[in-house]
Amino acid sequence: MPSQFDPPSGTRDFLAAEIERREHALAVMRAVFGRYGFEPLETPAFERLDVLLGKYGDEGDKLIFKILRRGEHEASGEADLGLRYDMTVPLARIAAAYGSQLPSPYKRYAIGPVWRADRPGKDRYREFVQCDLDTLGSQSLIADAEALSAQHDVLAELGIADFTIQLNSRRVLAGLLEAFGIQPDQGAGVLTSLDKLDKLQAADVVGELIGRGLAAEQAGELVTALTAADSVGRVRDALAKSDEGTDGLAEVDTVLSLLAGQVPAGRVVFVPRMARGLSYYTGPIWEAVAPGVAGSIAGGGRYDHLIQQLGGPEVPATGGTLGLDRILPLLPGEGANEPVRLDVAVTVMRPDLAVPSFALAAAARRANLRASVYVGTSGKLGRQLKWASDSGARWAVIYGEQEHEAGVATVRDMRSGEQVKVPVAELEEFLAQAARG
Amino acid sequence: MPSQFDPPSGTRDFLAAEIERREHALAVMRAVFGRYGFEPLETPAFERLDVLLGKYGDEGDKLIFKILRRGEHEASGEADLGLRYDMTVPLARIAAAYGSQLPSPYKRYAIGPVWRADRPGKDRYREFVQCDLDTLGSQSLIADAEALSAQHDVLAELGIADFTIQLNSRRVLAGLLEAFGIQPDQGAGVLTSLDKLDKLQAADVVGELIGRGLAAEQAGELVTALTAADSVGRVRDALAKSDEGTDGLAEVDTVLSLLAGQVPAGRVVFVPRMARGLSYYTGPIWEAVAPGVAGSIAGGGRYDHLIQQLGGPEVPATGGTLGLDRILPLLPGEGANEPVRLDVAVTVMRPDLAVPSFALAAAARRANLRASVYVGTSGKLGRQLKWASDSGARWAVIYGEQEHEAGVATVRDMRSGEQVKVPVAELEEFLAQAARG
Repeated sequence: MPSQFDPPSGTRDFLAAEIERREHALAVMRAVFGRYGFEPLETPAFERLDVLLGKYGDEGDKLIFKILRRGEHEASGEADLGLRYDMTVPLARIAAAYGSQLPSPYKRYAIGPVWRADRPGKDRYREFVQCDLDTLGSQSLIADAEALSAQHDVLAELGIADFTIQLNSRRVLAGLLEAFGIQPDQGAGVLTSLDKLDKLQAADVVGELIGRGLAAEQAGELVTALTAADSVGRVRDALAKSDEGTDGLAEVDTVLSLLAGQVPAGRVVFVPRMARGLSYYTGPIWEAVAPGVAGSIAGGGRYDHLIQQLGGPEVPATGGTLGLDRILPLLPGEGANEPVRLDVAVTVMRPDLAVPSFALAAAARRANLRASVYVGTSGKLGRQLKWASDSGARWAVIYGEQEHEAGVATVRDMRSGEQVKVPVAELEEFLAQAARG
Repeated sequence: MPSQFDPPSGTRDFLAAEIERREHALAVMRAVFGRYGFEPLETPAFERLDVLLGKYGDEGDKLIFKILRRGEHEASGEADLGLRYDMTVPLARIAAAYGSQLPSPYKRYAIGPVWRADRPGKDRYREFVQCDLDTLGSQSLIADAEALSAQHDVLAELGIADFTIQLNSRRVLAGLLEAFGIQPDQGAGVLTSLDKLDKLQAADVVGELIGRGLAAEQAGELVTALTAADSVGRVRDALAKSDEGTDGLAEVDTVLSLLAGQVPAGRVVFVPRMARGLSYYTGPIWEAVAPGVAGSIAGGGRYDHLIQQLGGPEVPATGGTLGLDRILPLLPGEGANEPVRLDVAVTVMRPDLAVPSFALAAAARRANLRASVYVGTSGKLGRQLKWASDSGARWAVIYGEQEHEAGVATVRDMRSGEQVKVPVAELEEFLAQAARG
């Protein structure tokens, strides 16, 4: 039921409960990334349009939200700014702008919204949060292993029990094509078909490959090597025939050995057919997948020429991204309780008792509790206790004429309904103790 | 020296050190707002243009960044979306969209960027963070006092020693104009002139008022009442002649009495001439000022009709905003040290020792320290220790052939240069202890 009060198509409003879940996941990411020595970077929501255009292909250019020029130029209908489409083009600009002022290597994370004028759909938004971490300036495979390991730690620390990280290298894929005698100009198409082995029957993929011009035997052997029970062994044997394949295999084995003691056995696996769509990767690539989730929940790879292609300096780079919207449904307790809005709800039984009630709430806050004073119009205790209950308050503090005369506050346990009278001067300590359990 | 790599005019890139300071301030706000029972709200960066236009006057409309329609409509040069100009119009939309699903009263905070196509200047940005807290649905002055008190607590908790919160009420100002016989149609202009009493000489303001059509005696008495040593007493006497003024004074006194025990004496003061620019306020208004800072660092007030004017339901409202960019320079320690990027820097003395070095960094992370492995190309210890030093690391962990054979790691204190050998299996505990002190 879209209404005039809905957010724009493809965007979302987040109320408290959802923000709490999202912020929890983002806080874990920031903490883990920090432990790996990545530092934060924040860039503006929009960039000059010439910085953005031509970086994502013609299709990408169409997906950029363009901002109209202002003032007298508005009528021109021209745009001069665009909302950022990803975090990588801004990173390239930063590398160019700050150069040697940045640490070397520059290990940064960037967490924030990006905008794409995609057709909105289920789980496809026009505004969504990207969670990227990247290392610029290192050719070492340790940098790749760090990025992968940090993503692993985020998923593990979030309590996602069941996920696998598929590891491969673009050079393994190149070597594989070479070993099976596939022409370079057929390579991209063949990889696209092989990427479907997760979804399609092997025979269907063979058919697709024949359609792409491969000989039937060639296509059959390739698919068999990638799907047989002893696939990894067959692929390793085949790759030995190619220099590129041998190098790629060494990359995979180095990353696997770096991670071996650090992640549970079987968590990171060599999957030779995993191609990870984007064309700009040059070395190791990886994707985290979880049962029941279409697509990957995290991924990354080495992209040694991309930063320069995007307008930055010539610098080797590796890194990855976590998909917040795909990860959130996997969190334990997802969809459980509403967050607690209040710990302590303080009544105002008469207007002239507002001042002491306000002070009682302040005492609860000094005990580091979330406390609020009733700001409605009813003088009825029942109404005010309903507000306390609706707010999820753990305790109501009742302060009426009797309490005022006796110098006490009545503390009501909203779960049990039990009430105790507490001297006003002792309320802070009483609530602090009660909160400790 | 603007270059092609600078961020767009009026926007900023934030590197790690600045983000650390900003995030510290924002974390304090979130914590304090939470303690007062305000919950977070996040809305999209852009709204449909019809939601934004006509809400901020003609001048405001010009300052909205408008987003071009997409696809086949791009060529039309028309816009259909706009970047949010503030957090209040989105709040009005949320109140209309979610209505009774929201708690009542709805106490929310919203912290995030807004965009205004203002002419960029010193301390004036086109992208800046707003930090708003508001209560919808309460006419109680307790709600005003809560918002003011929460802002006070933020400033105090941030360690800002010297600030004053000026309190007034729009109804005091209305009563003042009535008491001094000023015509309703002169009111707005007179308030604009009185607002300059901070900057101009009293005589100059009297001159301005005469220019606005006030009698010389009338102007002189009004300015004297507002600037004399016993100004507040004179104003109180004058207001007694006006019903509106009497009511306004009662508002101010109620808020003052609610705050009396909660904030240091003299922190919140009644300043009858403070008008707080915007025309939509209807009750108490306040502004926090600090010596040496032009303009206010925080402010707010009651605006009982605005939410409806902005397209929301008819609902009383009060709240305020903190100015992050004005507050940050006041924080103690501002401009002090670079943040520490790393706690532990682990060397890689030979490629074949990368695996154990990677594991040593993992051990440091388990001790909750920020740890990174050298990913450069030099095998020289001096080069790697320079990297450790440049990264601000507290300890370097050196792991060469000798260490490998002995099953130890050499831990170097980067401040003292002292080195100790620690068995590899004990490194986590050793570093955890060292970090504790």
